[in-house]
Amino acid sequence: MAASFPALERRDEARFAIAVTPDLAVGPPGHAYLFGGTTLALALEVAAAATGRPVVQGALQFVSFTPLGAVLELEVETLQAGRTLAQVRVTGSIEGRALFYAGAALGLRDGFAPQQWIAAPPVPPPETCPPCTDLPPQDAEARFLAGIEVLEAGGAAPEPGRTLLWLRRRDGAPLDTASLAMFADFVPLALGRATGRAGGGNSLDNALRMVRTAPPGWCLCDIVVSAAHGGFAHGAVNLWDESGNLLATGAQSLLMKG
Amino acid sequence: MAASFPALERRDEARFAIAVTPDLAVGPPGHAYLFGGTTLALALEVAAAATGRPVVQGALQFVSFTPLGAVLELEVETLQAGRTLAQVRVTGSIEGRALFYAGAALGLRDGFAPQQWIAAPPVPPPETCPPCTDLPPQDAEARFLAGIEVLEAGGAAPEPGRTLLWLRRRDGAPLDTASLAMFADFVPLALGRATGRAGGGNSLDNALRMVRTAPPGWCLCDIVVSAAHGGFAHGAVNLWDESGNLLATGAQSLLMKG
Repeated sequence: MAASFPALERRDEARFAIAVTPDLAVGPPGHAYLFGGTTLALALEVAAAATGRPVVQGALQFVSFTPLGAVLELEVETLQAGRTLAQVRVTGSIEGRALFYAGAALGLRDGFAPQQWIAAPPVPPPETCPPCTDLPPQDAEARFLAGIEVLEAGGAAPEPGRTLLWLRRRDGAPLDTASLAMFADFVPLALGRATGRAGGGNSLDNALRMVRTAPPGWCLCDIVVSAAHGGFAHGAVNLWDESGNLLATGAQSLLMKG
Repeated sequence: MAASFPALERRDEARFAIAVTPDLAVGPPGHAYLFGGTTLALALEVAAAATGRPVVQGALQFVSFTPLGAVLELEVETLQAGRTLAQVRVTGSIEGRALFYAGAALGLRDGFAPQQWIAAPPVPPPETCPPCTDLPPQDAEARFLAGIEVLEAGGAAPEPGRTLLWLRRRDGAPLDTASLAMFADFVPLALGRATGRAGGGNSLDNALRMVRTAPPGWCLCDIVVSAAHGGFAHGAVNLWDESGNLLATGAQSLLMKG
């Protein structure tokens, strides 16, 4: 139905469905599943479609993996919808079994000037950056990552816990809410680098706060993994366009690999 | 029932209740309500009580204010509880009307060393910092803020969008999950400073990611308000103890004051 997900089907005002195809999937050989960032992107897409408003903020809690080949159903429950703001919950399920829950706030108000208080970190332009070479090996039917160009923006001596990447979609999609939700979920890669364990961990949740969208182009993904305790870790990410506009921020917690 | 909230009553395995008393309330004259950070603290408290595990991460979506004088009921729904992790949803309501929803992940795993990749910002010790003088005026029955000592840690020329505070509870409570949830909700003050409009905005949500707890003492609250667009703003906060240990991170989005 929507530009971001042509295969997304609208079943009624509040119910949607999509088949989990290889272009949406990640995972090691033998375990292909819907990419976490794409899961959030889908939840926000149906929230925006159901309310007719742009996303301000969304937070998704993963309960189970959504496997490759499944038909994922998404249902939007409107908690309140007033003049300035709509708030919803989205449940993702397969054949009645819930796999994730998301909350989102949506709206756009006139009469407020955009403001940005922080600045993008100084990094080399994408043209001069080498490709990322440590993306985790994928199942042959998990092809989401193959659709993303990933460049190293952080140089040779990164700060502890920090990973800087230039990301771009090979399909030429804009830096819309869907793309930004996807790009915000490269935190596990950064955790893997911080700990030295490839893959890093499994996301418990994905949160996204939208500032603005941008035309197709490179997105600077500034990831900071802050700390780990008791087998769980936390990371945050700022997403910028090439002109230094903040597009969105993200955060997540992860179950660390043993 | 619990140390953090002696008045919190457990009605059964998954249902809890508490009266919203002045010590839990904030708000301008004529509009006293349960402090947002305390709302998240309560949701996480009942999640921990219901699962018997410490909080890893929680995200709460506010749908309505919880007014002073109300009896707030909290219900915990366990989504899954395995060996390493429990995930719950908490609904807060008054007489059957839902006011907020929270998701949380809880757990603690053996065999993982604590790690911290980022460092606390250099600030003067609390003994040398002046008190904060721009807390918003409160209703006579809204006394939560009177229970918190607030010092300015950022000096005379703060960075744009950034507010550094030393916070301490006058009741001598430890820097536990409840205290950290409360301290993470000083983002609206920072937004007010960034925009020049006292109060800043109303929180749409409150998110907290727990690293560790600490004994009673000062907590350094490093708040960054990143950007605003379409009448909504976003902020994040890192919470540190006096020794430079990261205790938790928080984030929220806000409906800006008109």
